Amino acid sequence: MIKILVDAMGGDNAPQATVQGCVEALENDKELYLILTGRQNEIEAELNKYKYDKKRLEIVDCPDVIDMNDIPTEAVKRKQSSLMTAYWMLKKEDDICGLVTAGSTGATIVGGQLILGRIRGIKRPALCPAIPNNRGGVTLLCDCGANAECKPVMLCQFSILASAYAEAGFGIKNPKVGLLSNGTEEHKGDPLHQETYKYLSQMQGINFVGNVEGRDIMLSECDVVVSDGFSGNVALKAMEGCGKLVLGVMKKEFTSSLSAKIGYLFARKAIKRMRSQLDFEKFGGALLLGLKKVVVKSHGSSKASTFSASIANAASIYRNGLVPAVEKKLEAIDFSTLIPEEN
Amino acid sequence: MIKILVDAMGGDNAPQATVQGCVEALENDKELYLILTGRQNEIEAELNKYKYDKKRLEIVDCPDVIDMNDIPTEAVKRKQSSLMTAYWMLKKEDDICGLVTAGSTGATIVGGQLILGRIRGIKRPALCPAIPNNRGGVTLLCDCGANAECKPVMLCQFSILASAYAEAGFGIKNPKVGLLSNGTEEHKGDPLHQETYKYLSQMQGINFVGNVEGRDIMLSECDVVVSDGFSGNVALKAMEGCGKLVLGVMKKEFTSSLSAKIGYLFARKAIKRMRSQLDFEKFGGALLLGLKKVVVKSHGSSKASTFSASIANAASIYRNGLVPAVEKKLEAIDFSTLIPEEN
Repeated sequence: MIKILVDAMGGDNAPQATVQGCVEALENDKELYLILTGRQNEIEAELNKYKYDKKRLEIVDCPDVIDMNDIPTEAVKRKQSSLMTAYWMLKKEDDICGLVTAGSTGATIVGGQLILGRIRGIKRPALCPAIPNNRGGVTLLCDCGANAECKPVMLCQFSILASAYAEAGFGIKNPKVGLLSNGTEEHKGDPLHQETYKYLSQMQGINFVGNVEGRDIMLSECDVVVSDGFSGNVALKAMEGCGKLVLGVMKKEFTSSLSAKIGYLFARKAIKRMRSQLDFEKFGGALLLGLKKVVVKSHGSSKASTFSASIANAASIYRNGLVPAVEKKLEAIDFSTLIPEEN
Repeated sequence: MIKILVDAMGGDNAPQATVQGCVEALENDKELYLILTGRQNEIEAELNKYKYDKKRLEIVDCPDVIDMNDIPTEAVKRKQSSLMTAYWMLKKEDDICGLVTAGSTGATIVGGQLILGRIRGIKRPALCPAIPNNRGGVTLLCDCGANAECKPVMLCQFSILASAYAEAGFGIKNPKVGLLSNGTEEHKGDPLHQETYKYLSQMQGINFVGNVEGRDIMLSECDVVVSDGFSGNVALKAMEGCGKLVLGVMKKEFTSSLSAKIGYLFARKAIKRMRSQLDFEKFGGALLLGLKKVVVKSHGSSKASTFSASIANAASIYRNGLVPAVEKKLEAIDFSTLIPEEN
């Protein structure tokens, strides 16, 4: 039995999409047990639409919901909110394995740091989505928004966190790690990235391949791209924007003439596969890495299928021992020797 | 008569593509006069393939060529190279309006700073490409690689440079300016971006609309997105990578089955328009803004049509008075009052 907490109230389509996602996840994974936090009556009203295994789902009633406009450092104090209630349960109850939320990214990060807590030795948690690449697989981009300001030691730790995720989440052996910069040459970047390059080159336990550029996130042999949270966020959203533009243009063009419509009918399977390859959500949300337990941040606009994929992702990563793998990697590295204290 | 210098030896496909591009540009614009720098015999061998107006083209023989592996600060000393010869002529001869090169970006930036020189008051030149957006127009991203490290005053000046370019290059009146950050809220970003936000909000002469995210480069109402050169480069290349992935998937999927191939035949016009909307090069290279004359950096992999578009872009921007427009905007702002010296 794998117990996962679900913030049923987080996200633009909650609780409809979250509850439906839970039902789907339970159907797909018979070992799963879900604890939904949120407004009980609203959740039950949604649950009543479906058949599901009632023995593997419980609800914890929470009157309060944190929304996108709340300031994260204030929101973390609202213990009766669905997200913070979940974090407190996750911290206190040993048999609960993880948490999935489509709520406020900021509140998820702050709650993770202040309530659940970091893995011993980790300076900061990092947000790490899986991005579709041209090999038909994924590239993990870490950090992409939890830390707008970084120090070299943080970037070095992100490389460990994301390498462990590549192994536990996607079965990638000895994942190739690149450092996101404004060119591939060693001297590229600002002092933060130049320093980080130096340390990553010396670090044991990761497979560092050097600097990579924005294009290499989707087009290279890299499995992990390490980034400060500012540039990583910019890159992620730039790619999402480009993907959205393409899908919008596709929709417009394939309805622009009779001939194009006929073309669409013949090519619709191919087009569907194209759309799927640009789907940033199919790999089940972004992981908030570096915390004591598995936390998955599903996209704010998650539909039921996306949310269900995020739950499946959390369960799978727990099964594959992500957190113990990170701890083991950390044991092998003495950061205080590698990197001067001020960095 | 508009005299433009062309580095005939710069880029992956030089001098074939550059020379062909020059011939096309001369054909399209009867007012154009081109001065090609490079190895005379190689250029002439290419020119002999075409008919062109010999009275509007001259060659300046340069034995040396700077390539992508040369260190820019060293390359700038090579006065007999096609690029630096062009920069020296551009500096010295009043009747020459601009320069187009597909050569090393680094050498183009360093040569621009050290030989041609900046517009009075401008701290640093910035690289500014035009990126296709969902309105069928362009968004100017400035800086996207000339300055990996920035100060707030530089970002504020980029907003002026790119606003003037939006007006002179694309006829956009009162262009909307966004600041690239990791979220739209005012407090987002690192101290550099938080400070810059404050100054941009107070600045006269630009139409600042607040923080924007990576997705907003292609998907928003913004005409200009201001960025430090590190994140701007990451964003640009992330979008290019995503675009390339899409085109690659499209090619693969539309040949994946008989049905898809038939679909392609019917929809090929629509697909061609889709490809064109993702073409980052069709708007004629990136401008190196902030210099005393017009300098256009065409993509290293420029084909003849791309290179010809870059030449046309240089001529058009000169005609529309980009540099005087920047000077006029600068006169209206007292940076030393707006921004403390150390920023």
